[in-house]
Amino acid sequence: MPIYNPPLRDMRFVMHEVLKVADEYQAMPRHAEVDVDTINAILEEGGKFAAEVTFPLNQGGDAQGCTLDKTTHEVATPQGFKEAYHKYVEGGWPSLSCDPDFGGQGLPIVVNQAFYEMLNSANQAWTMYPGLTHGAYEALHAHGTEAQKRMYLPKLTSGEWTGTMCLTEPHCGTDLGLLRTKAEPQADGSYRITGQKIFISAGEHDLVSNIVHLVLARLPDAPAGSKGISLFVVPKFRVNEDGSLGERNGIYCGGLEHKMGIHGNATCQMVLDGAVGTLVGQPNKGLAAMFVMMNAARLGVGIQSLGLTEVAYQNALAYAKDRIQMRSLSGTKAKDKPADPIIVHPDVRRMLMTAKAYAEGGRALAMYSALLIDRELSHPDEKVRKEAAEMVALLTPIVKAFLTDNGWIATSECLQVFGGHGFIREWGMEQYVRDSRINMIYEGTNTIQSLDLLGRKILGNQGATLKKFGKLIGKLVEEEGVNEKMAEFINPLAMLGEQMTKFTTELGFRAFQNADEVGGAAVPYLRVAGHLVFGYFWARMAQVALREIQAGNTDPFYQGKLQTARFYFARLFPETAMLMRQARSGVKALMDTDAALA
Amino acid sequence: MPIYNPPLRDMRFVMHEVLKVADEYQAMPRHAEVDVDTINAILEEGGKFAAEVTFPLNQGGDAQGCTLDKTTHEVATPQGFKEAYHKYVEGGWPSLSCDPDFGGQGLPIVVNQAFYEMLNSANQAWTMYPGLTHGAYEALHAHGTEAQKRMYLPKLTSGEWTGTMCLTEPHCGTDLGLLRTKAEPQADGSYRITGQKIFISAGEHDLVSNIVHLVLARLPDAPAGSKGISLFVVPKFRVNEDGSLGERNGIYCGGLEHKMGIHGNATCQMVLDGAVGTLVGQPNKGLAAMFVMMNAARLGVGIQSLGLTEVAYQNALAYAKDRIQMRSLSGTKAKDKPADPIIVHPDVRRMLMTAKAYAEGGRALAMYSALLIDRELSHPDEKVRKEAAEMVALLTPIVKAFLTDNGWIATSECLQVFGGHGFIREWGMEQYVRDSRINMIYEGTNTIQSLDLLGRKILGNQGATLKKFGKLIGKLVEEEGVNEKMAEFINPLAMLGEQMTKFTTELGFRAFQNADEVGGAAVPYLRVAGHLVFGYFWARMAQVALREIQAGNTDPFYQGKLQTARFYFARLFPETAMLMRQARSGVKALMDTDAALA
Repeated sequence: MPIYNPPLRDMRFVMHEVLKVADEYQAMPRHAEVDVDTINAILEEGGKFAAEVTFPLNQGGDAQGCTLDKTTHEVATPQGFKEAYHKYVEGGWPSLSCDPDFGGQGLPIVVNQAFYEMLNSANQAWTMYPGLTHGAYEALHAHGTEAQKRMYLPKLTSGEWTGTMCLTEPHCGTDLGLLRTKAEPQADGSYRITGQKIFISAGEHDLVSNIVHLVLARLPDAPAGSKGISLFVVPKFRVNEDGSLGERNGIYCGGLEHKMGIHGNATCQMVLDGAVGTLVGQPNKGLAAMFVMMNAARLGVGIQSLGLTEVAYQNALAYAKDRIQMRSLSGTKAKDKPADPIIVHPDVRRMLMTAKAYAEGGRALAMYSALLIDRELSHPDEKVRKEAAEMVALLTPIVKAFLTDNGWIATSECLQVFGGHGFIREWGMEQYVRDSRINMIYEGTNTIQSLDLLGRKILGNQGATLKKFGKLIGKLVEEEGVNEKMAEFINPLAMLGEQMTKFTTELGFRAFQNADEVGGAAVPYLRVAGHLVFGYFWARMAQVALREIQAGNTDPFYQGKLQTARFYFARLFPETAMLMRQARSGVKALMDTDAALA
Repeated sequence: MPIYNPPLRDMRFVMHEVLKVADEYQAMPRHAEVDVDTINAILEEGGKFAAEVTFPLNQGGDAQGCTLDKTTHEVATPQGFKEAYHKYVEGGWPSLSCDPDFGGQGLPIVVNQAFYEMLNSANQAWTMYPGLTHGAYEALHAHGTEAQKRMYLPKLTSGEWTGTMCLTEPHCGTDLGLLRTKAEPQADGSYRITGQKIFISAGEHDLVSNIVHLVLARLPDAPAGSKGISLFVVPKFRVNEDGSLGERNGIYCGGLEHKMGIHGNATCQMVLDGAVGTLVGQPNKGLAAMFVMMNAARLGVGIQSLGLTEVAYQNALAYAKDRIQMRSLSGTKAKDKPADPIIVHPDVRRMLMTAKAYAEGGRALAMYSALLIDRELSHPDEKVRKEAAEMVALLTPIVKAFLTDNGWIATSECLQVFGGHGFIREWGMEQYVRDSRINMIYEGTNTIQSLDLLGRKILGNQGATLKKFGKLIGKLVEEEGVNEKMAEFINPLAMLGEQMTKFTTELGFRAFQNADEVGGAAVPYLRVAGHLVFGYFWARMAQVALREIQAGNTDPFYQGKLQTARFYFARLFPETAMLMRQARSGVKALMDTDAALA
């Protein structure tokens, strides 16, 4: 049976020693009272919830999956999911970072995201039920009418109801401009919505009494394409003025998908048959409103894979210490045993350290992104808010794609540590691999993320935001450029920073001549950008660790951090050499393939 | 529903235009009558069998899996598997490359392996039932007594019985020196064998009347470790003098594993309870005898992933042409449709071409390796046989590890082409990914392959065999060094060849100082070697294609081949830049991690 220990020590390191979030919150009136102890206490409790309540349900949920009653259209979640959700609501967890105006606790996003990392380590499929609610909450909070907010936000905040995002249709996922679901205006100002949606996560389930669907559809007079899409809120049960549940609405689950992973989450085909909904935001501006949900969701997906990377690493590490097999090439290590524990083998360490370096680098980046969102939402200075928003926009596709690609690599390496046992279900490793696979696809495939990054976020503003990130690197290089002990981290980072500037300019020039060049370079470009950002955070983490060691701190945590930083720069960072050669090879070798792909 | 079309055109290209196998068979008396038409006719029929008989059972087999009757210890395979196997036997397919002395058709290994590629594309789980038989056949053929050969080989050749390899035990897989199963000598010269084996593929099933287990066990006076292991043949039903089945032997299936993939194959826990067996080969020399099976099996595993890569590619290509979504960045391509087919997008082509280049490069290497085995087995000149055997030894770990790692990458890229649909079972793509995962583990994990390559096959003979492969590259460079049209293929290949020599010497020097350096460098080293070999075959394939085009051949196949070669060198070959940096970074960053892995 797998194990899971909330990585509270590393979270405290990232939050308090590297990012110093509590100092930042001093400058945000809304969070001024959020101190180190408060954050730590919440995460300790949150970690307990994850490890003790939802983690034990993970393998059973995978084996059992969800079931649809085709007569009632009701979906039963795996055994224990409902009870765990009730404990979650009783504990007040849904409201952690929600608006106090609607019953929320108003805590920083950083705290909520760190909690979500642990929930995802424990049970990604379960976590998607409350996780999807955040998207609906945010879309309504940002674009809903006062009546809509009053009707839905308190119940979404408390967790009494959950939410969904109903975007995809059978013929369109990436290209929402093609969607066909129709919304007919009614005399009372509401709409009757008809169509079919697929891949709706948590679309139907038995955890709550009502489900609040955010649905994209077309008005009768809507222009074609993506400029003719509107957003509607469509509850499973219509809601009376007093907040009580009214009649069953015409939106129901027509089928459940059979999937590679996340079996415990109900991925629903949703049929809308004249379902009654109300418009959210402006007519034909639904896609923009939906992107409010999508951006938060993309950060959330990166954190799903961060969680899987962490739990896969913990289990592979435990196995590598326990399993004995063969002797070390450099001489027997465990003389009292018939073989050495496999952790003596260099390649086993390579696999473990890959997962660890990706988990901890990912945690630093995810927490930093969450901190930027806190700045964006809560800082009193408009300039700070604006700059934070720009940086979040830059980093979001990196968090989504880089962390999920890394999660796929890391969970697979961790499976490999187990040898044949990694392929066997009861060990739990293969589930992490299967669950992680969806994260590279949903909320915008990783290719779409890379196009968003290179096309819109980088070339779209002549690299201005990237330059701002470059300044952070420049500051670190300036601080540590003369510190010999930091040279092994600073030098490769500074070099990549310089290469990245030239590389970006070069791609911009090419893209100007042929727009397809963006599509040919975007995927390797995003991974280079990911390593630039990871390299920055690994250098900062090494900086903090070195300072502690030099100050006489003997906690081996800091030695471990330095060792992981060294591993990262020795073994993972060199991927940039390949990626830049791939991207530089140009789009011709990709597009001049008609005969090959005949 | 997935599609599969046997890649006969590309097989003919590799066999007849690149390797010219029929010319080679002229020099081998045993195969002198095997001409191009014979090979093509067999493969056409073999492709039909794969596409029409076993391919339609692949998804059903995955969904249904195998079931164990705990009372009778009998295992039921998925619906249709048994009937397909009977057709396979009726068609004479098991005997294709078996020895005519025991009823075989005596055809070249190349033909059998090409057929197996198609069987694996069609249904890896099913193919493992006949596939495992080959290992047992070869071990008995090489090491069995006359009586054992007479008793077992004709039935294994005809397919009337199947075989297994019973190596792994719960506490040992890689490290067989730890195994505990015991063999007690009996007065009649037989042995009573007792112990427990796990992960026994095709260990029990309902396809045949008898199963011939090759079992590793220890004699009572055996020395400890791997020098005290003997090989036994243990039939499910004891066999009477006249070849008829006698009493049920004490070897039975105690449980079936629940796995990530290959659900249609029965992965058995086998209990031996005083089972009667006879010794194969010399006492305490079982591991060497078993390696006869393992080497053939390792080539077979590479071909499993080759098959999965091919079928995943075919399906992703068909989907990419059919699915419309978004417009091309360089302008609308399908004006008559609401969106362009996704094959217009550069990154979709990158994913498709990755799979195609790995499939076709893998096919060239696998067929070449099979041809070398034909030389080894059937060439009249002892020197040729010896050189072929050495080259097979060098290439076997590359075929096993490089093709299976590539299969994991390629099947995952092909899944990604399908977007969300790739994650859904009915499309079939996620099964290819799940099935391919085991290939990186069994028959020696890919780390073990890399240690075998770098430690034994390269450094173990001071790079002598590698130099022989280098001579093949040198010959090609000499032939084409002045041909401008070949420069794009020859230059990077020649450069890598030179780097590889220095790189190998450097690693040898390091390994001399610290044996762990081999373990730290072996995995990236194997992938560099893989690209060296693929680079060579891609250059040779480009050479053949260019010559055809220059001779006026307008078959677009040759243009496609050139385009794929260009893609390979532009996008996949540059991985060597990363791999050499990783390997050169040394083992310290891996081993100096005790605090990190505390």
